[in-house]
Amino acid sequence: MNRMGTREPTRRQLLMRIGAAAGSMAAYQAMTQLGHAAGTDFSGFPSLSGARKGTTVLVLGAGLAGMLAAYELRKAGYDVRVLEYQNRSGGRNFTLRGGDTLTELGGATQHVGFAPGNYLNPGPWRIPYHHQGLLHYCKLFGVQLEPFIEVNHNAYLHDSDSFGGRPQRYRDVMTDFTGYTAELLAKAINQNKLDQPISADEQHDLLAAMKGWGLLDKNYGYSGTELVALRRGYDKMPGGGPDGAPTPSQPLGRAAIMKSGLWQWLAFNMSYEMQTTMFQPVGGMDMIGKGFAKHVNDIVTHNVKVTKIGQDGGGVTITYVDDQGSGAVTEAKAEYCVCTIPLPVLAEIEVQASAPMRAAIQAVPYASSVKVGLEFKRRFWEQDDQIYGGISFTNQPISQVSYPSTRYFTDGPGVMLGGYMFGPAAYAFSGMTPAERVEEALKQGSVLHPQYREEFSNGIGVAWSRMPWTLGCCSAWSEETRRAHYKAMTTMDNRLVLAGEHASHVGCWQEGAILSSVSAVTQLHQRAVSAA
Amino acid sequence: MNRMGTREPTRRQLLMRIGAAAGSMAAYQAMTQLGHAAGTDFSGFPSLSGARKGTTVLVLGAGLAGMLAAYELRKAGYDVRVLEYQNRSGGRNFTLRGGDTLTELGGATQHVGFAPGNYLNPGPWRIPYHHQGLLHYCKLFGVQLEPFIEVNHNAYLHDSDSFGGRPQRYRDVMTDFTGYTAELLAKAINQNKLDQPISADEQHDLLAAMKGWGLLDKNYGYSGTELVALRRGYDKMPGGGPDGAPTPSQPLGRAAIMKSGLWQWLAFNMSYEMQTTMFQPVGGMDMIGKGFAKHVNDIVTHNVKVTKIGQDGGGVTITYVDDQGSGAVTEAKAEYCVCTIPLPVLAEIEVQASAPMRAAIQAVPYASSVKVGLEFKRRFWEQDDQIYGGISFTNQPISQVSYPSTRYFTDGPGVMLGGYMFGPAAYAFSGMTPAERVEEALKQGSVLHPQYREEFSNGIGVAWSRMPWTLGCCSAWSEETRRAHYKAMTTMDNRLVLAGEHASHVGCWQEGAILSSVSAVTQLHQRAVSAA
Repeated sequence: MNRMGTREPTRRQLLMRIGAAAGSMAAYQAMTQLGHAAGTDFSGFPSLSGARKGTTVLVLGAGLAGMLAAYELRKAGYDVRVLEYQNRSGGRNFTLRGGDTLTELGGATQHVGFAPGNYLNPGPWRIPYHHQGLLHYCKLFGVQLEPFIEVNHNAYLHDSDSFGGRPQRYRDVMTDFTGYTAELLAKAINQNKLDQPISADEQHDLLAAMKGWGLLDKNYGYSGTELVALRRGYDKMPGGGPDGAPTPSQPLGRAAIMKSGLWQWLAFNMSYEMQTTMFQPVGGMDMIGKGFAKHVNDIVTHNVKVTKIGQDGGGVTITYVDDQGSGAVTEAKAEYCVCTIPLPVLAEIEVQASAPMRAAIQAVPYASSVKVGLEFKRRFWEQDDQIYGGISFTNQPISQVSYPSTRYFTDGPGVMLGGYMFGPAAYAFSGMTPAERVEEALKQGSVLHPQYREEFSNGIGVAWSRMPWTLGCCSAWSEETRRAHYKAMTTMDNRLVLAGEHASHVGCWQEGAILSSVSAVTQLHQRAVSAA
Repeated sequence: MNRMGTREPTRRQLLMRIGAAAGSMAAYQAMTQLGHAAGTDFSGFPSLSGARKGTTVLVLGAGLAGMLAAYELRKAGYDVRVLEYQNRSGGRNFTLRGGDTLTELGGATQHVGFAPGNYLNPGPWRIPYHHQGLLHYCKLFGVQLEPFIEVNHNAYLHDSDSFGGRPQRYRDVMTDFTGYTAELLAKAINQNKLDQPISADEQHDLLAAMKGWGLLDKNYGYSGTELVALRRGYDKMPGGGPDGAPTPSQPLGRAAIMKSGLWQWLAFNMSYEMQTTMFQPVGGMDMIGKGFAKHVNDIVTHNVKVTKIGQDGGGVTITYVDDQGSGAVTEAKAEYCVCTIPLPVLAEIEVQASAPMRAAIQAVPYASSVKVGLEFKRRFWEQDDQIYGGISFTNQPISQVSYPSTRYFTDGPGVMLGGYMFGPAAYAFSGMTPAERVEEALKQGSVLHPQYREEFSNGIGVAWSRMPWTLGCCSAWSEETRRAHYKAMTTMDNRLVLAGEHASHVGCWQEGAILSSVSAVTQLHQRAVSAA
């Protein structure tokens, strides 16, 4: 029995859960479902004019959505106060550094041992260029950004059942997959074997494209030529002087490439949300939360737990308890409320709202997710493997490991993301103790990097379903719940409006929190102005 | 007649030359030829032990190859002196900033008007992660590096004859090209129309791959579905609140995509030399040259022009003239010589070497290249187009424009690379006055960015064939010249050894200079030690 009172999964159960996630198509589909939202529309915060000065608003939650609401509403003349469960602002926007502690449901407390300057972003860690709402506030609050490297052609792709379990370089899989695809299509075209008639002109264009794009030889074959080396690299690298001639490398087999399913990671990295140029804040993702907090922390009350959200014709009444000190119960009143409490927590609170909104709150589950951070004594992935930033993918439960997109080429310890799990693997890792999570990440990661054991210094494992203030990673809308509940979730209900990534079409991204809050604040303002 | 005494090309001649370069296959082939070298082998400079202290070496040229030779030879105990034609060290590793002036053959002098902090790297501008020799010296000399963004999925691909001449977003071309390719192959497989028998298992794997990688629908069709939007993005972007639902975008036509030839840029960016993670020095490429110079400038004599390289059994005699002051002719003597003078210049100097080395010096032509730098009043490519770093490609002569991979999101002026030409387009631009180069780059670039004229501040155009100290951009080896002359070019000839990118299999990259010099220094040392 573990601390939660439930039975720990057996090794066999664990492997079965893992198996369900590890099938390449399943993993890919999970990824693309997570990637259901992409790109946003934002061209500056709408002007809120005509507010009756001093109209009172209570904001519940000091994450990005709550702090945005507080910042913009106060700027527009509202009298705003924020209630926050944790002892800090930022919500899921947070960063763990040496000296930090993290206590999860069940009581396990982790003390982060990272060296100065190193960090892990347990929640959001990358910002697509098209998340213009978030980028707007980064600029407004002076948050310095640097490129986040998503694709690294020299990182590894790994499938336990392919190529004898040996990780392959991303560029080799990409080159060979492209080459074989082009070869098969070119030869089918060349023999008029397509399923539909194609004009001679298009045949000509297609053949040229397959040949050039696939690096095919003059017979439209994909073979281990000098040409292919331009993309794959070399066994013996080119050099200077008399002995500088390189030796091309040899392609992997076609059937093995196709069977491996490693193409799924090429596909994943082509998705809109992973496209260049991505960014991250210099020094850790929480620089954004801190940027917001600098402007609103004076009106945030920390360490209070909301127990009831009441409303009537006259206003809202929020009941909360002091979660650290006296345990005293307080009622706070205001004319309006913006509630950004994550749904799994909100679902346990009495909310006076319309039946549709209450149903919406209950309807949307949260995805579970686990991240493991591993500090190593040196950046061996750079020094030994020539991998600078980016991600290696594997069909093992850890799913991926990522190399820091910052402080390249430095000496001393570095922190890798040692695993990033959704779905069954996340449940399995959540069921482990923090030390077991780290140990499992080390074991699996050693397949990619044999240096792991020798170079390991310390690690942490963050299970989102065990964070008491969110009880999950982020909202998992389905098409059905979206149809049934999205409107009620996002539409102001008398004096109460919800915000947070769950109230957007950009779920699981900080941008969703930003844009949902823009909508919530706008609705609230329109309601308040028309009521005045 | 222009300053060189040759007739300026007429507009019609210019267009014809441009046409020769603009054919997409031709341009692609030129690119892949330039990309003939990739990846290098370097694991630290070899230890040079046993040198007879005080053995004298004259190094000709203070570019990266020359400075590396000077640095390593002096460290090993040699008595080294460097002769440099220019008034600065660095060679083709240089950066232009506001206040700099540049005078070219023919006498045209450009005064750079860029705002503080902005710059253009007229020569090398990006460093592949596998150029480990160069990266070694960057680390050794404390040169800070930051990611160089090569691929930007939100940048443009443009073909004048396709899509009504409208630039397309990189991600749209990538998504649609991938989708149509997958659809054609999947349907051919599905109907057993491949040219060769494929096992049922592989058919199954291939179909799964085409479907997942190409984002095909259940009938293996590539159509404008929600699924495709995951990669293409949306017409109406997803947002927050009740109106947050996105609208997918519609694919371009298959025949038009294939005919456009825009796939060539996808292919180009997959090449080993363009793969992630690339780097650039923070503040300009010349930070590397300055890093070297800090360690060797005390033994560099600037502003001297070598006119003869003599050698006999006793040593080398270098004749040079003071190019700025008295014009005095001097003879310098040493036991050995490392000559890094670019071949077009060296070919005009009397060199006492074996017939094969002299033939090699004459045999290898240099590519011409032109870069245009344009400063604009604001970073409209970021603010209006959401393009952060990376490159847009066009079939116009300018070939590409690039957005700075640094100082993202800043206000104030920014410098774009307004054109980067090789081949016929480079000859055409070299024949123009600097002002005409800038004007032509503005005209062509306006097709990609209509903001050009409104936002333009100032610009420069650097024609490498008009740089008196190199007379071209870099060595253009062919397979034939490689076979006939590479060995003689790179093998020490009595007391003389050549170095520079031309003496490597990594031509046209700084890494070639580094590795050629490592080889040259090693050969010289072996010769000197065995002679002692």
